[in-house]
Amino acid sequence: MADINSKLEIGVTTGPIRGSRKIHVPAQTNPAIRVAMREIDLEPSSGEPPVRVYDTSGPYTDPDAAIDISAGLAALRRDWQFARGDVEEYAPREVKPEDNGKTGPDRSGGVPAFPTALRKPLRAKAGGNISQMHYARRGIITPEMEYVAERENLGRARLAEYTRSGESFGASIPDYVTPEFVRDEVARGRAIIPSNVNHPECEPMAIGRNFLVKVNANIGNSAVASDVASEVDKMVWSIRWGADTVMDLSTGRNIHDTREWIIRNSPVPIGTVPIYQALEKVGGVAEDLTWDVFRDTLIEQAEQGVDYFTIHAGVRLPYVPLAAKRLTGIVSRGGSIMAKWCLAHHKESFLYEHFDEITEIMKAYDIAYSLGDGLRPGSIYDANDEAQFAELYTLGELTKKAWAQDVQVMIEGPGHVPMHKIKENMEKQLESCGEAPFYTLGPLTTDIAPGYDHITSGIGAAQIGWYGTAMLCYVTPKEHLGLPDRDDVKVGVVTYKLAAHAADLAKGHPAAQVRDDALSKARFEFRWRDQFNLSLDPDTAELYHDQTLPAEGAKTAHFCSMCGPRFCSMKISQEVRDFAAKQNQPSTGFIAAQDAEKGMEEMSKVFKDSGSQLYMGQGEREHD
Amino acid sequence: MADINSKLEIGVTTGPIRGSRKIHVPAQTNPAIRVAMREIDLEPSSGEPPVRVYDTSGPYTDPDAAIDISAGLAALRRDWQFARGDVEEYAPREVKPEDNGKTGPDRSGGVPAFPTALRKPLRAKAGGNISQMHYARRGIITPEMEYVAERENLGRARLAEYTRSGESFGASIPDYVTPEFVRDEVARGRAIIPSNVNHPECEPMAIGRNFLVKVNANIGNSAVASDVASEVDKMVWSIRWGADTVMDLSTGRNIHDTREWIIRNSPVPIGTVPIYQALEKVGGVAEDLTWDVFRDTLIEQAEQGVDYFTIHAGVRLPYVPLAAKRLTGIVSRGGSIMAKWCLAHHKESFLYEHFDEITEIMKAYDIAYSLGDGLRPGSIYDANDEAQFAELYTLGELTKKAWAQDVQVMIEGPGHVPMHKIKENMEKQLESCGEAPFYTLGPLTTDIAPGYDHITSGIGAAQIGWYGTAMLCYVTPKEHLGLPDRDDVKVGVVTYKLAAHAADLAKGHPAAQVRDDALSKARFEFRWRDQFNLSLDPDTAELYHDQTLPAEGAKTAHFCSMCGPRFCSMKISQEVRDFAAKQNQPSTGFIAAQDAEKGMEEMSKVFKDSGSQLYMGQGEREHD
Repeated sequence: MADINSKLEIGVTTGPIRGSRKIHVPAQTNPAIRVAMREIDLEPSSGEPPVRVYDTSGPYTDPDAAIDISAGLAALRRDWQFARGDVEEYAPREVKPEDNGKTGPDRSGGVPAFPTALRKPLRAKAGGNISQMHYARRGIITPEMEYVAERENLGRARLAEYTRSGESFGASIPDYVTPEFVRDEVARGRAIIPSNVNHPECEPMAIGRNFLVKVNANIGNSAVASDVASEVDKMVWSIRWGADTVMDLSTGRNIHDTREWIIRNSPVPIGTVPIYQALEKVGGVAEDLTWDVFRDTLIEQAEQGVDYFTIHAGVRLPYVPLAAKRLTGIVSRGGSIMAKWCLAHHKESFLYEHFDEITEIMKAYDIAYSLGDGLRPGSIYDANDEAQFAELYTLGELTKKAWAQDVQVMIEGPGHVPMHKIKENMEKQLESCGEAPFYTLGPLTTDIAPGYDHITSGIGAAQIGWYGTAMLCYVTPKEHLGLPDRDDVKVGVVTYKLAAHAADLAKGHPAAQVRDDALSKARFEFRWRDQFNLSLDPDTAELYHDQTLPAEGAKTAHFCSMCGPRFCSMKISQEVRDFAAKQNQPSTGFIAAQDAEKGMEEMSKVFKDSGSQLYMGQGEREHD
Repeated sequence: MADINSKLEIGVTTGPIRGSRKIHVPAQTNPAIRVAMREIDLEPSSGEPPVRVYDTSGPYTDPDAAIDISAGLAALRRDWQFARGDVEEYAPREVKPEDNGKTGPDRSGGVPAFPTALRKPLRAKAGGNISQMHYARRGIITPEMEYVAERENLGRARLAEYTRSGESFGASIPDYVTPEFVRDEVARGRAIIPSNVNHPECEPMAIGRNFLVKVNANIGNSAVASDVASEVDKMVWSIRWGADTVMDLSTGRNIHDTREWIIRNSPVPIGTVPIYQALEKVGGVAEDLTWDVFRDTLIEQAEQGVDYFTIHAGVRLPYVPLAAKRLTGIVSRGGSIMAKWCLAHHKESFLYEHFDEITEIMKAYDIAYSLGDGLRPGSIYDANDEAQFAELYTLGELTKKAWAQDVQVMIEGPGHVPMHKIKENMEKQLESCGEAPFYTLGPLTTDIAPGYDHITSGIGAAQIGWYGTAMLCYVTPKEHLGLPDRDDVKVGVVTYKLAAHAADLAKGHPAAQVRDDALSKARFEFRWRDQFNLSLDPDTAELYHDQTLPAEGAKTAHFCSMCGPRFCSMKISQEVRDFAAKQNQPSTGFIAAQDAEKGMEEMSKVFKDSGSQLYMGQGEREHD
């Protein structure tokens, strides 16, 4: 066990993200609530204030935080939970051998139980409902909502500078997010705050079309002890680069213990697909799945603190044959497990039949539904077909059943969709699911580029995010080919962060463009360090720059390797601005074209008088 | 010189692209015209015919072709040119020391003249016009047009299978491309066939919104001898991965000789920005540029065979001050050179003033205009501003002047544009430039991801390609940071090929989806080799697969590392299909939902009788 622990200690990446400082901003409505963010300081020459950015990285990037993987993170939300007086501690369900797949001879090498998992689980007092939606609908603003409001307000203080522009396709993005706005969005089901009462380490975040577009990263798949360390590290690594939630898709053996290590150390919501573990408990034979085994698995994971469950309750018996006409059939694992169960028993899905009972469990722990699209298309050919939309309508029906019990819901979406068919997915989802947050995988906009599917899907993700999707599930370069390693996880997360940001810009999110403008201004003023630090991946930006101009001096040089030392197109722009200024124009002023002739004469004189030597020479900038 | 040559021999990548065969298809209208394509053979088990794909790689991927960089490629079009009887050979302009920047002491190390450049240049007989547009408008179908028609018809033979779907935003994409259709598109200026009479090695291709979306790759920037080899190799490397045209942006010394080596070995159209070389000839001092120096440079490059010239004639004196209000001013090198010249002399641009004289030269060699957008935005903040659109309207005015002399034109576009402002660019271009082909750089949809700008721009490129842009200028991961190396060139080209293909799919191009479906079917049937071979980058696809499952056996295994050997969601899909078949349904048949109950009963029985053991186990496919 010491080995395992030390491995874990070693495996996790800590320390500040290059060029930024961790800060904790007191919520305006409640200073006791301190919201984690990052600030990027700019060079003094800029005369600009630090740029504040959304931060998902948790205490791992805080030099003042003591990280002990074996102890887990601090229970940020614990006091809030008790203060509400509606929860009870109770004796947990006993961990059974089958929870870790150890019914037979253990070939796993063993994973140690999380050493300090002594805390008793919480749940709502008998018959109670502790979901954020339930509070919201009763008009209660929770600390979680206050935290979210402050967190989403990034940069909006500087909005005076901006006239908003964008096409939001009917979204209702406010100039400024108030706790009351958050409450209202959660109450009407248009946003969720995944927050299992047994995951108090989680920093509250919202998923909804009127908030910043979020990104999910998947980890898991490991089944041997030595992988627990790497899975925890992958979780920490993915949130370092911006993953807003993480799904633990671990299967095989040691599922229970692996998940405990991940949740106890995660500052972001954790999602799972419970049917995976239920399947393992019945020896991997789908037909042998029962409601009791599944229900027991939900309780097990609820007590550990899983924040949202993917439930494929929309894969109904009558829909299975619709997959027969497809080019690529059923590509969702959960979907095919349920399809197989339905086929074998010729019965309606037990998930569909027992949906209200599942909801009872969800509300007692405040777990959010992620209604799975088990019949999503697995190829361009199958996009937007009957099977897909038949399931979507059923997910809409189930959404209303969950809402009837004040349980939070989001809806999973495709998949593989050509660009011209993406919008229909968003429109049908909004219409059939009452604006419940949409959570899509890509979609991939072509099937011909395996090895580059983070890009084929990033194109679709940016667009569907613009249309209104609330969270984008990342795709890595290894999609369809193999298991993502640490580098793939980073590339996947950064690709999806830029896609989500492009969507926020296009929607006209008031906080989004501040960072683009700060980076562009830094670029124009040759503040190379600021350019690197303001980017989504400062390490790679500086690495690429240094491959051509490694000298430290180049970091302050008024040129780049594209244009070389003797020429730069940025220089003349600055001169044009200087001339404009000399014409008593503000530096951001505007010389109307019709006045230009006169202006040009004087500018020409100024230019010749100044006799300033422009850098001229080789190279190219932006291709011409 | 022997060194240089052997370097060149070594540097160039030859041999077939993995899994495909070079073929030459006789044009249906003229069997003497043999059109280069590639065919990908599928595993016999598929029972599928080979998949034919568009091929830009030239003789370098043809095992039967003898490649000698010092001799250059065969003059494919030479006979067609003479057959028209409207050209004359003449004594070329003498190469001057300043053409290679050798007026001062030569610090370059020297680049050898292309050894076999003995061929005399051709031009139209006095007062003549040999542009493809001129022929087209006189109703003449040239061999170039026949070649293009055959080349664009990829896969359309199999169209019987398809009902076309897509949103083309007013494009007129035919079910089948005829030479007459090509002639008509060129005649009306909606497509161009760049084909300088002195680049007979070029395989004809068309750029237009009713043809497949094309991709341009930029090379150049080198100024020392040793780089000539790497620049020629970069050209060959970029067309291997699918670049439809290549721009040589070489600057500094040895520009003339470097360009000669590239053109003589290029089977794709070569574009340049002549102002770069003109600037070098006047010692890099923009104010010293004159019409005479520029004109002499045009003749020099026309005689070498440059197929299209980027001319920044839209950067007019009155527009320069409009850049003063910008966040990032002028980011186009050519644009800032002209802006500086205008400022210094307080005169209207000599490119604008002498435009008709430039056109006289273009028509004598059949060089196409690529009217440069010197005032394109260099940041999200500056997108769609007055400076940009003022220039665009002028480019529209110049387009009509060029067309008045039957000279081919395309229009360059931005740049940096958030998603919600992209469509306006396309609409304004179509409206002001009379549907002349649009040729855009990206656009980048956010500024915050340096190091990933091939992706931030790939997102914008796919969308503007869908809206109607005819050619996409690639962006590499090094954009804004450094000079692209060989790997960057490949990533940039493949990223843009997938973006262009996503656009073709969304436009409903009849030939596009054949390849997606073939790859998806191979994926569904576990034909791993076919999956790799059908992808844009077979080498990377197989490499990624083998990182998890290197064994040769895994290439035929009915599972992948995502799902592992004991489970696969594809299997059940195939079972569902089998059951459907047993119900006397065609394998692509459809069981209506209302009949499903009955169908299910029988299927349930079939399933239990068959007692077939499904693979079940660990892992995940497409995230759930």
